[in-house]
Amino acid sequence: MSDAAVLLVHADSDREYLRAPGEELQTDLGVLTVPEAPRPGETIETHLGETFAVRRLRGPDLFNHFERTGAPMMPRDIGLVIGHTGAQSGDRVLDAGTGTGVLSGYLGRLGAEVTTYERDAEFAEVARGNMALAGVADRVDVRTGDVLEDLEDLAGGEFDLLTLDTADAAAVVERAPDLLTNGGYCAVYAPFVEDARRAEEAARGAGLLGVETLETIQRELHVDDRGTRPSTAGVGHTGYLTFGRRG
Amino acid sequence: MSDAAVLLVHADSDREYLRAPGEELQTDLGVLTVPEAPRPGETIETHLGETFAVRRLRGPDLFNHFERTGAPMMPRDIGLVIGHTGAQSGDRVLDAGTGTGVLSGYLGRLGAEVTTYERDAEFAEVARGNMALAGVADRVDVRTGDVLEDLEDLAGGEFDLLTLDTADAAAVVERAPDLLTNGGYCAVYAPFVEDARRAEEAARGAGLLGVETLETIQRELHVDDRGTRPSTAGVGHTGYLTFGRRG
Amino acid sequence: MSDAAVLLVHADSDREYLRAPGEELQTDLGVLTVPEAPRPGETIETHLGETFAVRRLRGPDLFNHFERTGAPMMPRDIGLVIGHTGAQSGDRVLDAGTGTGVLSGYLGRLGAEVTTYERDAEFAEVARGNMALAGVADRVDVRTGDVLEDLEDLAGGEFDLLTLDTADAAAVVERAPDLLTNGGYCAVYAPFVEDARRAEEAARGAGLLGVETLETIQRELHVDDRGTRPSTAGVGHTGYLTFGRRG
Amino acid sequence: MSDAAVLLVHADSDREYLRAPGEELQTDLGVLTVPEAPRPGETIETHLGETFAVRRLRGPDLFNHFERTGAPMMPRDIGLVIGHTGAQSGDRVLDAGTGTGVLSGYLGRLGAEVTTYERDAEFAEVARGNMALAGVADRVDVRTGDVLEDLEDLAGGEFDLLTLDTADAAAVVERAPDLLTNGGYCAVYAPFVEDARRAEEAARGAGLLGVETLETIQRELHVDDRGTRPSTAGVGHTGYLTFGRRG
Repeated sequence: MSDAAVLLVHADSDREYLRAPGEELQTDLGVLTVPEAPRPGETIETHLGETFAVRRLRGPDLFNHFERTGAPMMPRDIGLVIGHTGAQSGDRVLDAGTGTGVLSGYLGRLGAEVTTYERDAEFAEVARGNMALAGVADRVDVRTGDVLEDLEDLAGGEFDLLTLDTADAAAVVERAPDLLTNGGYCAVYAPFVEDARRAEEAARGAGLLGVETLETIQRELHVDDRGTRPSTAGVGHTGYLTFGRRG
Repeated sequence: MSDAAVLLVHADSDREYLRAPGEELQTDLGVLTVPEAPRPGETIETHLGETFAVRRLRGPDLFNHFERTGAPMMPRDIGLVIGHTGAQSGDRVLDAGTGTGVLSGYLGRLGAEVTTYERDAEFAEVARGNMALAGVADRVDVRTGDVLEDLEDLAGGEFDLLTLDTADAAAVVERAPDLLTNGGYCAVYAPFVEDARRAEEAARGAGLLGVETLETIQRELHVDDRGTRPSTAGVGHTGYLTFGRRG
Repeated sequence: MSDAAVLLVHADSDREYLRAPGEELQTDLGVLTVPEAPRPGETIETHLGETFAVRRLRGPDLFNHFERTGAPMMPRDIGLVIGHTGAQSGDRVLDAGTGTGVLSGYLGRLGAEVTTYERDAEFAEVARGNMALAGVADRVDVRTGDVLEDLEDLAGGEFDLLTLDTADAAAVVERAPDLLTNGGYCAVYAPFVEDARRAEEAARGAGLLGVETLETIQRELHVDDRGTRPSTAGVGHTGYLTFGRRG
Repeated sequence: MSDAAVLLVHADSDREYLRAPGEELQTDLGVLTVPEAPRPGETIETHLGETFAVRRLRGPDLFNHFERTGAPMMPRDIGLVIGHTGAQSGDRVLDAGTGTGVLSGYLGRLGAEVTTYERDAEFAEVARGNMALAGVADRVDVRTGDVLEDLEDLAGGEFDLLTLDTADAAAVVERAPDLLTNGGYCAVYAPFVEDARRAEEAARGAGLLGVETLETIQRELHVDDRGTRPSTAGVGHTGYLTFGRRG
């Protein structure tokens, strides 16, 4: 994870930018060049005298600052995938579809080796740039194409984790026993209940253990002088998560 | 993470055991000795001819098989901590109180270096055994004592992450700016809303950024021939999670 | 609503019984006869000297004490039907299927005239007894049969409210414009999401206005000396509610 | 409930107005006068030839069209109060604070006699106008003042139901046993958890039975060709509801 981008945080506002070492930042606050070896906590001035603090990159920054090619998976759902599957350093992960690549970036940064499929060539190219920013280009292999067409080659790959965020996830889940190592997990993210049901049925049909589909509602607690209450704004649905494990 | 325990899964039932390499498993199914270098997928027989499959250890196994000294944090909440803070390989983490050590075990297994405080000496000893089982004894330092008494020494430690699951978490949060590196996160787990409020107020008072307290409701989706619906059993409250980040 | 049963509450326990005026109560606490005109607040003694207080019957008592022929709709869902449709005194209501009759009993007790269909003759008979206990036998007409077969006769009935708790609710919803008066509401209770979807599609197809399907999660707040938190027990799913209104 | 306003619904848009019999409606669509005895379903033309349909007034119309003096209680929460307390025709209800009067209007329209207190004289005057529109002016007595000052006079009033939506509800709950008839219910609506806790403690302290505080989360189901899912928009918190019953 060398050469990851750093977060540049403006001292006098809440503006933040993600830039790689050696890159230039050009905004109305002036121009600055990120040092080749930026240290967290140091400050850098633009030619207009505006100060930016350097922060080490972390997962939520990927969500907030990656170039987007669609609605990326949110930190909460990425966290749930990690918590329910125990994604860990050294894991071999097969992922489809990449999208913006926030999940792949998180997994790379916790030390997993990720092979991820994205059908859209332009999206894949953006995701590759995002992986470079996240400092995980050497750990995350973004492949342009349809994972379904490569399943024969991938079978026997002994993946520890299979993460799927595609409309036809169920078709991959059917093959999970060929793809996963013993005790390896499969996780499917599906916005619609019909797709979640298909994933659950495919996981059961494939003989995975501990199959369950979870729905998560998260609300912010609002705290002020009058008292404490859940936010009146509400937090909406993101997706169902279906999990199963190879026996 | 060498020498982690492996999961032994009985071929003909859903019984599972966590045992370290070289350890003996004695049950009514017979006796077996785990090889010094067990390989995931291999099978081992007891002297009574019962077969167990070897699986590589993963996070949820820590929750299911660690010796418990209280109600451990659940995989879902551990995942949310990881997702919302971007816990990653190489992180320096300060944690209190250890309890059963499931959170520390997860963090160790994704490559973080964890210093964790547990006031109860017996609980700390159990947690040390659990860390050995998880193969992270070299990464997780379980200290017996009260983190509040060590704050002077810990200040300037440049921790990337502060995780707190103690009744007096707010008192530690007040010192978060001295403990965290720039851009580092603080996460508090609190079952009661009053404690969550105190944590949120302490985080705001300490000048942390992006302070928010989240409540998470998770339900299992029930799928059968009649249709699909959320479980009628319900999933109860675990705890509020309060997050903040050092600027 | 004369002659409704009263609730008899044992003075020294939490035991309660629903009995009509003039009826006898025989339990291990002794025998008593309910007066012909019981007054709320008065006490009655059994021949063994045990004291019961008389309470006026209210909606939740119907749920707790009616003879059951299945899982009745819960007070919360009945309340939501009333709140979202404005069920009121003088309403003409068409209901199917009756089941235990708790919804019909509530509607009768707020002054509506209810025609309700139950296919199972035994269930219908039990429901008629329940309506008598609730004091609404003159307002709630429990018909044995399938509402779908009577739709021709019911059309033009100018109902203010249509309440459906049957597997084939969507087929009735299609006819809602013929059954409802202008501004009248249709409400469907469906445990499964597929049935709720069918109801929503039928309501839209029939040209009803303000069509919406709502899912309700209710949790009890747990209050003790340590603090306040949602119950760890959880409250499960009951059913989706789909509403629409004739323009 | 004679002389209630009717809902006037524009034939070619979703515009609706609430007007009493004999009243004039003046908009950019022209002028019309509501007949003295409007019949649901009939149509009325403005002098510009725009057509309005007459609908009988129902509860949700009170919420949508009453003149507001603050955020009124929502139909869902009104429904929950009715469902959990069994509010019914003939009930004697004591309510505080009136606010816009939507709860009082609903209760009046299901046949209850309501005495409601509003401290703000202007708000009370608006509420009286709203009760007239709802056709329940003869059933809902809107009193200007603080219910706490009248508790001595109200004690012994044998109310069937006590509904409280004020910051100092707990002080009234303490007196609930003096106000309620046997078996009568108390319901408190409180946006903040601290106030809900105070209400629950007051209800327990007063010896009420079946005391519980409920939190309700309601989401709309989104249905389209791609599938079915809970709304991504989210529905926010409204208030906690605390219930108790006099033994």
